[in-house]
Amino acid sequence: MLTALKGNIIEALSPNSLGLHPNSFLVLEDGRVAGIYAQLPQAMKEAQVTDFGDALILQSFADMHLHGPQYEFTGTGMDRPLLAWLETYAFPAEARYADPAYARERYRQLSRDLIQNGTTRVSMFSSLHTDATLILMEELEKAGVTGYVGKVNMDRNAPAYLCETTEQSKAETLRWLDACRRFTKIKPILTPRFAPSCTEELLAFLGKVKAERDLPVQSHLSENVGEIALVAELFPDCGQYWQVYDKFGLFDGKTLMAHCVHSDERERAALLERGVRPVHCASSNNALMSGISPAAELLREGQGVCLGSDVAGGTTLSMLATMANSICASKDRGVMKNDPSQALSIEAAYYMATSAGQTFLGAKPGFGAGERLHAVVLDDTHLPMLPGMSLRDRLLRAVYRLDDRHIRAVYSEGVRRI
Amino acid sequence: MLTALKGNIIEALSPNSLGLHPNSFLVLEDGRVAGIYAQLPQAMKEAQVTDFGDALILQSFADMHLHGPQYEFTGTGMDRPLLAWLETYAFPAEARYADPAYARERYRQLSRDLIQNGTTRVSMFSSLHTDATLILMEELEKAGVTGYVGKVNMDRNAPAYLCETTEQSKAETLRWLDACRRFTKIKPILTPRFAPSCTEELLAFLGKVKAERDLPVQSHLSENVGEIALVAELFPDCGQYWQVYDKFGLFDGKTLMAHCVHSDERERAALLERGVRPVHCASSNNALMSGISPAAELLREGQGVCLGSDVAGGTTLSMLATMANSICASKDRGVMKNDPSQALSIEAAYYMATSAGQTFLGAKPGFGAGERLHAVVLDDTHLPMLPGMSLRDRLLRAVYRLDDRHIRAVYSEGVRRI
Repeated sequence: MLTALKGNIIEALSPNSLGLHPNSFLVLEDGRVAGIYAQLPQAMKEAQVTDFGDALILQSFADMHLHGPQYEFTGTGMDRPLLAWLETYAFPAEARYADPAYARERYRQLSRDLIQNGTTRVSMFSSLHTDATLILMEELEKAGVTGYVGKVNMDRNAPAYLCETTEQSKAETLRWLDACRRFTKIKPILTPRFAPSCTEELLAFLGKVKAERDLPVQSHLSENVGEIALVAELFPDCGQYWQVYDKFGLFDGKTLMAHCVHSDERERAALLERGVRPVHCASSNNALMSGISPAAELLREGQGVCLGSDVAGGTTLSMLATMANSICASKDRGVMKNDPSQALSIEAAYYMATSAGQTFLGAKPGFGAGERLHAVVLDDTHLPMLPGMSLRDRLLRAVYRLDDRHIRAVYSEGVRRI
Repeated sequence: MLTALKGNIIEALSPNSLGLHPNSFLVLEDGRVAGIYAQLPQAMKEAQVTDFGDALILQSFADMHLHGPQYEFTGTGMDRPLLAWLETYAFPAEARYADPAYARERYRQLSRDLIQNGTTRVSMFSSLHTDATLILMEELEKAGVTGYVGKVNMDRNAPAYLCETTEQSKAETLRWLDACRRFTKIKPILTPRFAPSCTEELLAFLGKVKAERDLPVQSHLSENVGEIALVAELFPDCGQYWQVYDKFGLFDGKTLMAHCVHSDERERAALLERGVRPVHCASSNNALMSGISPAAELLREGQGVCLGSDVAGGTTLSMLATMANSICASKDRGVMKNDPSQALSIEAAYYMATSAGQTFLGAKPGFGAGERLHAVVLDDTHLPMLPGMSLRDRLLRAVYRLDDRHIRAVYSEGVRRI
């Protein structure tokens, strides 16, 4: 069955280049991308066309770092110091997910809001609760959100009401992984919260499970200066933060590391060599005053940087706003260092928000041939079209001026969800 | 006639303190503030109450620096260098306001959008066109926006199609001022675009008009490094940028100076001594990579800093977003300088966005007794109310998470406009 979307198609081909297809046809065969054409080829003439007029057809967004149970308090208490913020908001919020009924309601809302904002791919932290994690995966899959979700592991340095014993953490991880087999679009990702919240025994266990089952991993790395000092204290035999994960086999091409704000030359070389993906979370780095990531530098040295909303350290679930925030932070870094090359381009921001995440999840970049369609249709036609305005100009403006009100359609896995 | 608004009332009393009145009555007598009461006093029992339930009743916003004719291209071309941006977008856009019909349509939209976003007070730059400026003032007044508008003066360093002769600029300024007499809520403010775009003869004329007619003045000061160097070159007898305005009598307590990003100790002392008001425009300073204002320092030394969207160097007309942007920029400055005291509090952001501007415009801060009501009602009741969440927490969250969709009512000059 042939179908097609017609409009102004924009692909994120690399951190430096957009694929611009004004007024073109994105043709699908059974929901999979067949190609992009300025005119419908003769052999595709019978395709059912959905005409989006002058709207923008973009790849939908991949939010590669966020905390599901923190969504409910997004934007709250952002002027507290990190520790007070965790104790007042993050930990009590996560603890409420011991209740499956509560989890069901909140996670249903989160899943809807992701689709509403054009996010169809995620890599998400749940809480440590196995049942709530399974509920989260169910709700995401039902809503059309694909990607990874991880039950969080933490067996130390957490409040008593939100801490597992090492044995519990191991057993619950196995129970969770077994129960995940029923999902087709949402897959498990091992999720040690961050090095300081896991004992060496637990990290060794997770490394073993990863090796045996060939699982991906997500965690935090070099987010703020205090955390780096704590890691050095807790793991005195590891010269650098990344080496903790590496020591236990949790640092390879199937690994996402949120932040990497303060990674030095050696840590960055290790990320690059192993193919570990840094996830840039501009909004939370700003809100929690963690630092400003050298994201443009990381991209230039070839790191596969993804973008994350990092809800609820981040203040918004919208990946449009997250792109704007990443550009904003990079410019602030640029002016403070008197180095304009720190500024992220719209090409870079769009790539990090889409293709970077989708390639981590195993898809081709852009609207890759044969891939199931993930797309968002943004309507900016209420804004003035200025003389000589390019599609690129419109994409940059969209990042600053559009929100979920302007999303006319969302496709995930070839299915229209909005 | 007694009326009252009931809800959670929040006043900006100073850059360090909020007036919090949970579940209270804001009582009005013929649209003027009579007082705020936890319970309706006996003598006011007959007041007609509009009950906004658990919503937030805030002072409406004062946007003390924006360019009316640039609104249409907000968010466009924000990655161009300043000069290219001016030549590609700002100047051609302003030139279109030679056409009164065009101006009417665009300015009507701008006026509506201001009210829609809860902005009831402005100090705005028009273009150099007298007729379009009068149309802007008419449309603002009709929509319920109060404050100042200035016909721009520029007789050099502007493109030929957007430059006046000195004589034209003088004559048109007088014609404009005479025609302004018909307005009651929107008043004229002298507006030399910035020092480099005015000859000494024109600046001297504006100083004379200001003295004779006791008019306020607005312009730009120390926005970026290149501009400061240009001023030094053009006005070799003035030791510092501010001294150009001062030399011509354009630098006193009735003066707004946008930006002041790079004002040094001496310039800041002059601002403070004269009572000149800096207008902080975080979004445009970021977008154009001008620098990051030390806004928190300025407030601490007693400067009466106001907030401006600076559309269209700024990327949004929303003063909620502008508050968020100002906090964001201040945190970036803080992390880069390793000085957390650079971070603006919600108290400071709310004060700059409301009371600072309204006091410049002659009103008392907060909901001052006897003042005509300017208020915006923000509905955050769709967001979870967390255990122990204060009104202050809700105000901070509102800045990050709410937009014009959540504005339930807007009052200007005692009249409900939404």
